[in-house]
Amino acid sequence: MSHSHRDALFQWMKTYVYRHSETPFRLASGLESQHYFNCKEITLHPERLSILAECFIEEIIPKLNIEFQAVGGLTLGADPIAYAISLGYQKRGKNVFPLVVRKESKGHGTGQQIEGFWKDIKTCLVVDDVITTGGSTLKAVKVLREVGINVTKGICILDREEGGSENLQTENVTMTSIFAKSEFF
Amino acid sequence: MSHSHRDALFQWMKTYVYRHSETPFRLASGLESQHYFNCKEITLHPERLSILAECFIEEIIPKLNIEFQAVGGLTLGADPIAYAISLGYQKRGKNVFPLVVRKESKGHGTGQQIEGFWKDIKTCLVVDDVITTGGSTLKAVKVLREVGINVTKGICILDREEGGSENLQTENVTMTSIFAKSEFF
Repeated sequence: MSHSHRDALFQWMKTYVYRHSETPFRLASGLESQHYFNCKEITLHPERLSILAECFIEEIIPKLNIEFQAVGGLTLGADPIAYAISLGYQKRGKNVFPLVVRKESKGHGTGQQIEGFWKDIKTCLVVDDVITTGGSTLKAVKVLREVGINVTKGICILDREEGGSENLQTENVTMTSIFAKSEFF
Repeated sequence: MSHSHRDALFQWMKTYVYRHSETPFRLASGLESQHYFNCKEITLHPERLSILAECFIEEIIPKLNIEFQAVGGLTLGADPIAYAISLGYQKRGKNVFPLVVRKESKGHGTGQQIEGFWKDIKTCLVVDDVITTGGSTLKAVKVLREVGINVTKGICILDREEGGSENLQTENVTMTSIFAKSEFF
């Protein structure tokens, strides 16, 4: 199994994503921390996003022993990862549908909270960029389960090791992360 | 120049995207019409999205005579197109950055309305799935121009031929569409 994708990602994570500051940052979860990770430096950069998708497809997902027809999570952070993984499988001749879970239901039109071919999906691999408390991942999981989609496994770039994966496990979602916060200091 | 991508897309558009009804549909623009196009049947389907990106990259964008470093538009409709085009150029060794324009600025964090590497971008090709009045495309154009990005050309899947491209032209944005509504009836 090639580690080259993970190695390349790890260099980018250290150079572009991770920042340390004596004065704490305020995180999306509302918590404060001296360790800040801006994973959009990976997910919104064409070269890094394509390597990220290859890393998930070749090095992470094969170990999960899961049959799934879709990948998706809470917009906006999960979107580039879901699209890149979906297009990566497409190159390999396998249809994995991207699902985009909105934070709220949409006003007009079908009014549901998931964009994509969710009606044809039995199992979805939930995705997020970073998990701290697991809150945003769990929000997506609940919406997906509400329409009858089976969600028991998930992937993310970084686990901040602050209870997120444990919280998700109590909700019967096993999260696999490429990196853990403690690898960076 | 191969027309195969456009031909394949046209079949999908007729089969999955276009619907006609005696009782009018209500469109995202608030207008009503007997002709409804759900382009998510293309943009959220892995195979069709990858062919859509190839069509733009090989058959549409080369005719626009434009130097650009990014592609993007208003979330959520523009996102899959921007990511797929960005990853399509990445395969060809060219870095085209995806930009995601939020409808509103974000509460926490940097608080700006564009997600992505907008600070490094001189010219962005604006993208949308459907244009009716051109309103949502124009919203993205204004946000992009506000941070100093040059936007004079755009692409979309379908022009409903209801004044959108004219409205955009008065704002100095030339829109090129793969399909026009009148091709479908």
